[in-house]
Amino acid sequence: MGVFDIVTQFGRMLENLDAWLDKGAAHAKEKGFSPEVFVQSRLAPDQYALVQQVQSACDAAKYAAAYLSGQTAPSHPDTETTLADLKARIATCVAYLKGFKAADFTGAEERRVAPPWMGGQSVRGETYVHRISVPNFYFHVTTAYAILRHNGVELGKKDYLGPS
Amino acid sequence: MGVFDIVTQFGRMLENLDAWLDKGAAHAKEKGFSPEVFVQSRLAPDQYALVQQVQSACDAAKYAAAYLSGQTAPSHPDTETTLADLKARIATCVAYLKGFKAADFTGAEERRVAPPWMGGQSVRGETYVHRISVPNFYFHVTTAYAILRHNGVELGKKDYLGPS
Repeated sequence: MGVFDIVTQFGRMLENLDAWLDKGAAHAKEKGFSPEVFVQSRLAPDQYALVQQVQSACDAAKYAAAYLSGQTAPSHPDTETTLADLKARIATCVAYLKGFKAADFTGAEERRVAPPWMGGQSVRGETYVHRISVPNFYFHVTTAYAILRHNGVELGKKDYLGPS
Repeated sequence: MGVFDIVTQFGRMLENLDAWLDKGAAHAKEKGFSPEVFVQSRLAPDQYALVQQVQSACDAAKYAAAYLSGQTAPSHPDTETTLADLKARIATCVAYLKGFKAADFTGAEERRVAPPWMGGQSVRGETYVHRISVPNFYFHVTTAYAILRHNGVELGKKDYLGPS
């Protein structure tokens, strides 16, 4: 059940992220600036902008689900340029995650995972999910949240955690 | 094994956070400003400063370990005012987490958890850990990272994930 719960939670957090983007768009409208400003906003000049934070959060979730179930991840090219594009990317990823059942992750903890960037090396599924997927996923969603928050969007803990 | 792995990973991330504070102090020294400036730095005027992000990350980890093992969490008063204080707080929390063994979390997923802020309500341990502890913990460590990064500290993915 562990990995399925984690993948389910990734989907829930991506739905929360989608709602933060809506709040960002509403804030921009209220203040009279283009909501697309957020897409390229970042916290440091050499850190990913919002667009890449959202893409990376989606990918962290997608690859966790794919690798840990032994599937090949679908390709989602990084072509987004607007908030609407990012919302569509999130929706695509959430739909993919919702296609999984608990049984798809049977034995996932013991499965060897070999992402291409490991250059032929592999790690146990349990190590991959706890030490790589979860921290990376939350890094990108929290940084997306921080970019919006830093730029004046009124977000709080209830937005972060989502509906209970 | 699931909850023990998560608590172990919390300890690992807190050790990474400790190293980010060291990098922050080194950066301040190099630039000739007081490292204590970071303690009260924040990304938005109505968001927690670094001091509270670190305290909250420690507490998220401490309460997860305590609640899910059926123990009473030790009190760690929020009295920190310097980076050295924050490093001591992290060390105290990491030492507490290291006192747990996998067997302490036997049945943790099914255990009912009733944090005081839930006002008498309770949730299953598995729900608590995946939907509350993990997102809150990573929220606070990532926001601490973002505060340092936003203020010029050179941190990257290897710092975030820590030694493999």
